[in-house]
Amino acid sequence: MSEFEYTSAAAPIYTRLADELCLLIGNGQLRPGERLPSVRRLSRQKKVSATTAIAALRSLETRGLVEARPQSGYFVRARGAQSEEPAMTRPPAAAKTVGVDNLMVRMIDAALNPDIAPLGTAAPDPAWFPVRRLQRIIASTVRRHPELLVTCCPYYAGLDTLRHQVARHYAALGCVVAQDEVVITNGCTEALNLALNAVAAPGDTIAIESPCYYGFLQIIEKRGLKALEIATHPRDGLSVDALQNALVSRAGRSVKACLVSPNFSNPMGATMPEGEKRRLVALCEQHGIALIEDDVYADLQHNGPRPLSAKAFDRSGNVMLCSSFTKTLAPGARVGWIFGGRYAEDIRLRKFALSGATPAILQEALAEMLRTGGYERHMLKLRRGYAAQVARMAAAVSEYFPAGTRITQPAGGFVIWLELPGKIDTLALFEKAIVEGVNFAPGPLFSASGRYGNYLRLNCGRMWTPGIERALMRLGQLVKAELAAA
Amino acid sequence: MSEFEYTSAAAPIYTRLADELCLLIGNGQLRPGERLPSVRRLSRQKKVSATTAIAALRSLETRGLVEARPQSGYFVRARGAQSEEPAMTRPPAAAKTVGVDNLMVRMIDAALNPDIAPLGTAAPDPAWFPVRRLQRIIASTVRRHPELLVTCCPYYAGLDTLRHQVARHYAALGCVVAQDEVVITNGCTEALNLALNAVAAPGDTIAIESPCYYGFLQIIEKRGLKALEIATHPRDGLSVDALQNALVSRAGRSVKACLVSPNFSNPMGATMPEGEKRRLVALCEQHGIALIEDDVYADLQHNGPRPLSAKAFDRSGNVMLCSSFTKTLAPGARVGWIFGGRYAEDIRLRKFALSGATPAILQEALAEMLRTGGYERHMLKLRRGYAAQVARMAAAVSEYFPAGTRITQPAGGFVIWLELPGKIDTLALFEKAIVEGVNFAPGPLFSASGRYGNYLRLNCGRMWTPGIERALMRLGQLVKAELAAA
Repeated sequence: MSEFEYTSAAAPIYTRLADELCLLIGNGQLRPGERLPSVRRLSRQKKVSATTAIAALRSLETRGLVEARPQSGYFVRARGAQSEEPAMTRPPAAAKTVGVDNLMVRMIDAALNPDIAPLGTAAPDPAWFPVRRLQRIIASTVRRHPELLVTCCPYYAGLDTLRHQVARHYAALGCVVAQDEVVITNGCTEALNLALNAVAAPGDTIAIESPCYYGFLQIIEKRGLKALEIATHPRDGLSVDALQNALVSRAGRSVKACLVSPNFSNPMGATMPEGEKRRLVALCEQHGIALIEDDVYADLQHNGPRPLSAKAFDRSGNVMLCSSFTKTLAPGARVGWIFGGRYAEDIRLRKFALSGATPAILQEALAEMLRTGGYERHMLKLRRGYAAQVARMAAAVSEYFPAGTRITQPAGGFVIWLELPGKIDTLALFEKAIVEGVNFAPGPLFSASGRYGNYLRLNCGRMWTPGIERALMRLGQLVKAELAAA
Repeated sequence: MSEFEYTSAAAPIYTRLADELCLLIGNGQLRPGERLPSVRRLSRQKKVSATTAIAALRSLETRGLVEARPQSGYFVRARGAQSEEPAMTRPPAAAKTVGVDNLMVRMIDAALNPDIAPLGTAAPDPAWFPVRRLQRIIASTVRRHPELLVTCCPYYAGLDTLRHQVARHYAALGCVVAQDEVVITNGCTEALNLALNAVAAPGDTIAIESPCYYGFLQIIEKRGLKALEIATHPRDGLSVDALQNALVSRAGRSVKACLVSPNFSNPMGATMPEGEKRRLVALCEQHGIALIEDDVYADLQHNGPRPLSAKAFDRSGNVMLCSSFTKTLAPGARVGWIFGGRYAEDIRLRKFALSGATPAILQEALAEMLRTGGYERHMLKLRRGYAAQVARMAAAVSEYFPAGTRITQPAGGFVIWLELPGKIDTLALFEKAIVEGVNFAPGPLFSASGRYGNYLRLNCGRMWTPGIERALMRLGQLVKAELAAA
């Protein structure tokens, strides 16, 4: 028995079979238009009754994932007009100061309320993670290394064991960094703060994707920086052409860094093609601005090999890569890292001045997890699970939301980004949805200029339950009502 | 058997008896000039042989703590001219930019070298701490609260359990804060960053004690702030008169906050009298500058009741108190807190943007430690231990260092601050001492203006061993040699 399953073992057999098929659709093994196995074949292969097989296929049909064709069986549904992707974004040309505090706090507070469906913050379901293994490894680390609890630790750059394991993990991904370049941090958020501190002073401008994670906007605001939003494609990510144009414009002159998530960005789930990553690295180097890479979702591809990080193309040390275990292995551990490149020494000192050190006992436990291969085994399952969830949520949105709703098709991660039809205001929608017990992230959270009023982000990280389905249905009804009223 | 002892159980009986007496001298139960128990009484009370009692008393004599008077027995030595305290400091009137990176790194790196006596960083001996209890509590917390490992936690201000316990701890000390005002941080260092971020922007000036902890100078430097050093008394701490004068001077106009350690400051170990704390709180309020209180050593009084924090006199929310468990309970946990006063809401958001959250599992374990009373029991022993160590180190300095060396007499904490006679340069001394296997903190580390060239700080937090004694002897010889060469 594996330590976790993406579907509860208590679910009916037909639901578990449907989930399995859903996963194949989600990770691309079953493509749009392709025929699903027949009832007979399914029941033989999976050792279930024909009734169960039929119930599974009907459930997929209800979710909008497959369609029945007379005399032919079930086929993966092509994504119709309804599931089209949103268009390339067109943010303003000027840098903006930022302020999204209040809305963010309300969305995060709602995540604490068990009566509100958790589609707001990008928080994965606790059930994804290898809890028992983490418990065992932490307990054994506490037993074997009590000194880590009581040493006023001079290892402010992090424990060598974890720095080594993290460097090794990336080396296997074609991204070679020296162990000395690695600084262990309190999550990716602290890593991003360190990177920004190293290269930008208050008043300076940071080029970002538009839309981008609201946490980036928070950091930028609290540091007194300005954000310059760059046009971004929902599938291919940051437009390097748009960045290039911006850098030679008036607003581009005060840009000190470009902060990007090249792999499975948040909220769009976009992934920059390799050639564009290479161009981005070269462009930043050429303009003398630092490239800060948020890599926190990059291990979460739904299918195929893990995409390269932009840092893999860095030859001059101008790229600072920031990441953590928060979305992959141990959300509560708050252990992250930064590869500081040519800024590494400065960043080490800044880490000492910013928080002294990262708790050593958690570092050692996570190093052990990487050392013993537990990480890779866990990730194989997690990726499949997230892929299935994203496919299922997207299918439910297609089913319950009004025609004209556009949905991103991320190749990794666990959020989807919706463009609603008409002039629907997702801030007003948020107020109504919270009352109805549904949380989501309104579009304007992801923009320094208040854009994306008719967009929203859905967290697909939670296990599929009837409650989640009802919440999506309710949200879809609210959208339809707004649309009718407009 | 207690969970730790300030003297190793493996030490000879006479050493342990000497240590016990040393402790009584250190915490003031035996005062200068007072007669020690006779050999007969000691051997009866402590159930040791007369030989052992004599050996213990002779050992105290060797350490310079007691003197034998013919026909009368042993008496606690009065601190002679040699042990005089340093004078009030006289820092410059202008604010300074800061830069002590290189020296600090070398001192911290030396702390990693087991061949170098650990008198440099203010790192307590791991043996002081209740390791087994910490191990048990963390293991049981991991067992009972696995969800804390895998929840992408929305509790960015900290777990309510720990916020409650910390507020309760302070309420018992006459410092009443609402639980909502508490934000849990990654150590005191992060708390100080949050406080400074809330009230000061790059270019602003922060008033600080002179000398002050080099970590403060690091934070000030990395944030692009300036430091205005205020005259400080080695026993009574920051001069409120001097601060008042500075605030109305030219340099005082850009002061946005005053950052002070009113209780057992580092490096001086000074404690502000209650009236001065009250004046300081009022003065900051009156001038519209924030008071940031570093409270990290305040629980470590050597004797009598714990002094009040300045925050206890705060009526308007203008005082931000920052502290942690790093010097008291669990140096490796990196768990601290800030009471944000009127800035609390802003600080909560800044915490989210700075590091997301503090590891919840360690928060819960420490809350449990406070809840079950383990903290207070531990502290009773720790305070006695630190008191004895400080007394012992000061006695050894009196014995091995040249006449004219002045030593602070801290009433709490575990560092002492030495003023060396003549024109000895402690930066040059540091180079020689490291080669000879002795670490210490040179005076200029503690000043933004490079002052205190003939001062140094010694860490008394490590258990007394023959190795520590040899290191002090060697350092004393080096000082004498420098003096002779000058």
